[in-house]
Amino acid sequence: MSDLDSVLAAVDEGLPEALERLFGLLAIDSISTDTAYKDSCLRAANWLVDDLRSIGFDVQRHDTPGHPMVVAHQRSTTNSTAPHLLFYGHYDVQPVDPLELWDRPPFEHAIEETPNGKVIRARGAADDKGQLMTFVEACRAWKTVTGTLPSQISLFFEGEEESGSPSLIPFMNEHRDNLKADLALVCDTGMWDSETPTISTMLRGMVGEEITITGPSLDLHSGMYGGPAMNPIRVLNRILADLHDDNGRVTLPGFYDGVAPLPDDVSEQWASLNHDGKAFLEAVGLEHPAGESGYSVLEQIWSRPTCDVNGISGGYAGEGFKTVLPSKATAKVSFRLVGDQDPAAIQRAFYQHVHDRLPADCSVSFLAKDGSKATVMPVDAPAFKQTQKALTEEWQKDAVYAGCGGSIPVVGHIKEILGMDSLLVGFMLDDDAIHSPNEKYALKSFHKGIRSWVRILAALSEDSSRSQT
Amino acid sequence: MSDLDSVLAAVDEGLPEALERLFGLLAIDSISTDTAYKDSCLRAANWLVDDLRSIGFDVQRHDTPGHPMVVAHQRSTTNSTAPHLLFYGHYDVQPVDPLELWDRPPFEHAIEETPNGKVIRARGAADDKGQLMTFVEACRAWKTVTGTLPSQISLFFEGEEESGSPSLIPFMNEHRDNLKADLALVCDTGMWDSETPTISTMLRGMVGEEITITGPSLDLHSGMYGGPAMNPIRVLNRILADLHDDNGRVTLPGFYDGVAPLPDDVSEQWASLNHDGKAFLEAVGLEHPAGESGYSVLEQIWSRPTCDVNGISGGYAGEGFKTVLPSKATAKVSFRLVGDQDPAAIQRAFYQHVHDRLPADCSVSFLAKDGSKATVMPVDAPAFKQTQKALTEEWQKDAVYAGCGGSIPVVGHIKEILGMDSLLVGFMLDDDAIHSPNEKYALKSFHKGIRSWVRILAALSEDSSRSQT
Repeated sequence: MSDLDSVLAAVDEGLPEALERLFGLLAIDSISTDTAYKDSCLRAANWLVDDLRSIGFDVQRHDTPGHPMVVAHQRSTTNSTAPHLLFYGHYDVQPVDPLELWDRPPFEHAIEETPNGKVIRARGAADDKGQLMTFVEACRAWKTVTGTLPSQISLFFEGEEESGSPSLIPFMNEHRDNLKADLALVCDTGMWDSETPTISTMLRGMVGEEITITGPSLDLHSGMYGGPAMNPIRVLNRILADLHDDNGRVTLPGFYDGVAPLPDDVSEQWASLNHDGKAFLEAVGLEHPAGESGYSVLEQIWSRPTCDVNGISGGYAGEGFKTVLPSKATAKVSFRLVGDQDPAAIQRAFYQHVHDRLPADCSVSFLAKDGSKATVMPVDAPAFKQTQKALTEEWQKDAVYAGCGGSIPVVGHIKEILGMDSLLVGFMLDDDAIHSPNEKYALKSFHKGIRSWVRILAALSEDSSRSQT
Repeated sequence: MSDLDSVLAAVDEGLPEALERLFGLLAIDSISTDTAYKDSCLRAANWLVDDLRSIGFDVQRHDTPGHPMVVAHQRSTTNSTAPHLLFYGHYDVQPVDPLELWDRPPFEHAIEETPNGKVIRARGAADDKGQLMTFVEACRAWKTVTGTLPSQISLFFEGEEESGSPSLIPFMNEHRDNLKADLALVCDTGMWDSETPTISTMLRGMVGEEITITGPSLDLHSGMYGGPAMNPIRVLNRILADLHDDNGRVTLPGFYDGVAPLPDDVSEQWASLNHDGKAFLEAVGLEHPAGESGYSVLEQIWSRPTCDVNGISGGYAGEGFKTVLPSKATAKVSFRLVGDQDPAAIQRAFYQHVHDRLPADCSVSFLAKDGSKATVMPVDAPAFKQTQKALTEEWQKDAVYAGCGGSIPVVGHIKEILGMDSLLVGFMLDDDAIHSPNEKYALKSFHKGIRSWVRILAALSEDSSRSQT
């Protein structure tokens, strides 16, 4: 039996214990957006420190003004010419509200039978605790069976991914030497479908802004002041309604600068995926593509920029009615970017858009989320081919290159600060509900995810060239 | 000393005890909009039952599907030819959020010194507990000093005024005979300024709707679905932004049907009030009248209809950022009506406005608040003149007739169901913050409010004619 086969067998045999470890991590309510959960984030970081030490990693927890970073190294390897890999993941999770829509407590995991097989149900099961543990377990299996790893491996976990990663850039700048490797591996993406392994090669970037409009200096009675007193919700509605035209295009001047037509070869590969846009929308209760007319659903997600309001609030939102004319109204707005769109230019255009629609006696404040450019990967590099082959062997189905509508800002930072390309492999499925109630991760994703990484580690170490990408 | 003078003296002497009674009622957190406070509303009703019994009223609490009604009668009077008066008030209060903007717990009263004199600080101090107690205390003083009341008096208190009064119309229909009197007195209005006693003769009506837009059947990740998936916040923003044109006019077709120009005499009387629209807005941090261009601030409040969004919510509104594309978005919208505007027609026009802007795969649900027409009082009737004279004597300043931007739906119901006119006298001031944090009621309003009712009761009983209005 080859080393690879032995390690894969060990993964199969050790699955129950691997699941128990994952459940331990899922039980920690490490919600990074809310400072009330700061201790929970610390506990999740410490959990990782302990677990990685048990595999022989040299681990350090680095505290930040936000949540801690965990950095681990294992440099001893029998294959000193193999590339040094840096795996990135995040141990924080999305908030759980609206809590009443969960069928069970979000931090008490369950294995549930579904028509599509067994799933692990919990907040963070897919995003990103389940995914990051696929890689950790792959390392553990290699180490257990062979006593070493196929290549030098470093791990880098943050706890602020779901809250804009405020500490990430300063930390990466400060620890550049500590983090530098040959190739980054990022497991925060999904599969084309439950059978088809996938390497994500395009990521949308992001600009996020919280905008607060202040009108009157205090909440007013809408009978006593309604008419002459400007309502900040009315101002906010106008600002937000004007962000799209009737064809689903974003109206900010210059917004589409840097958005190139899709290259023909990419366009052809995507067409060969036979994506059923109608079924994709029907699965979430919709029928009509709401993005720019003239583009397929897949193109609207993978290759076109967007604007969405992710949250809005103002006035009385409780049960019943309150005839208030509020002092403030707030919205969280995000733009997804593609191609060469410039986050800073789009932020400026948005600010201008708001100021152009702001009555003289209202004021506005902005709270920016870190922006990031879109990413397009060098898919012709050897590491991409090796990974594609390893995934195809594991899943017995050709691995595909796909776009990704989401934003993974760290991929941009890894490129800019560490000068490294990233290889994005993940095992999430479209229906994992990763930012919604009842998040889940397929048990098959977890199990074959571990096996996939076992194979990828082997494949990447086969070529002794350092110029993997 | 005349009876009237003796009663007024008793009011002055008994003020500390009257305040203690008011504080007892203010301590009850009778928030009617939130079912969590149902027991508190019951306690407030029981408090009134007990207090009115102590004055010799024949009192009954009538339970409803919502909060209880309290009806009390005292028919024995030395003046059997005096008109039978029905006093209306409400013991429920507005919600207190945002709680963090209160300087003290909303249901722990305080007497505070301010540059404009002493104030009673608490939720409900003005709206409507303080006001209703001015009338109750006036009755108590008459009864204590003379052993009787100057006329037959009935009292009618509800506990749902701040939550759309769902039980009011059915109850009034069922208890028509029990509530019928010659003239209604309603103390839920304010004074022109802190020196000028005021009878409100015009009230805006109201149409209120809670509207919920549903897009996707579940909350989505804005990266994975942003573009093709319609965002219900975007739909809602468009619907709401289209409600006003650039001149502050409401755009619903037919909205201004029934809105007549202000009669010249009313226009002249209002002009003589020398209202400082600029100062009125500056007091709440605004500069520019936001209503229809071409109308003064006073006209925009008293004689022009409006539309306001009183609350909006959707997506993630907590700390930080969550890149959700929500399933639902909700707004509470209200229209203030004047003249002969028809609430049902405006509701229909609003529904049509929404449906016209609703994408085919989104749905909408409405939750209507009871509508009410605007009210214009018969100011030439004797009761208005008698009341004006009594108020002028108490305040040593001419009482004025004023409009009122707010809506008091019960006034319409009293007219339609009981066939009675209402006389609206109240002692609130513009800065009482009645639906806002730190609500207050001037101590002078409370004290001279009681004295005013003592005088009004005497004045209304002077004329033995039953055709008071």
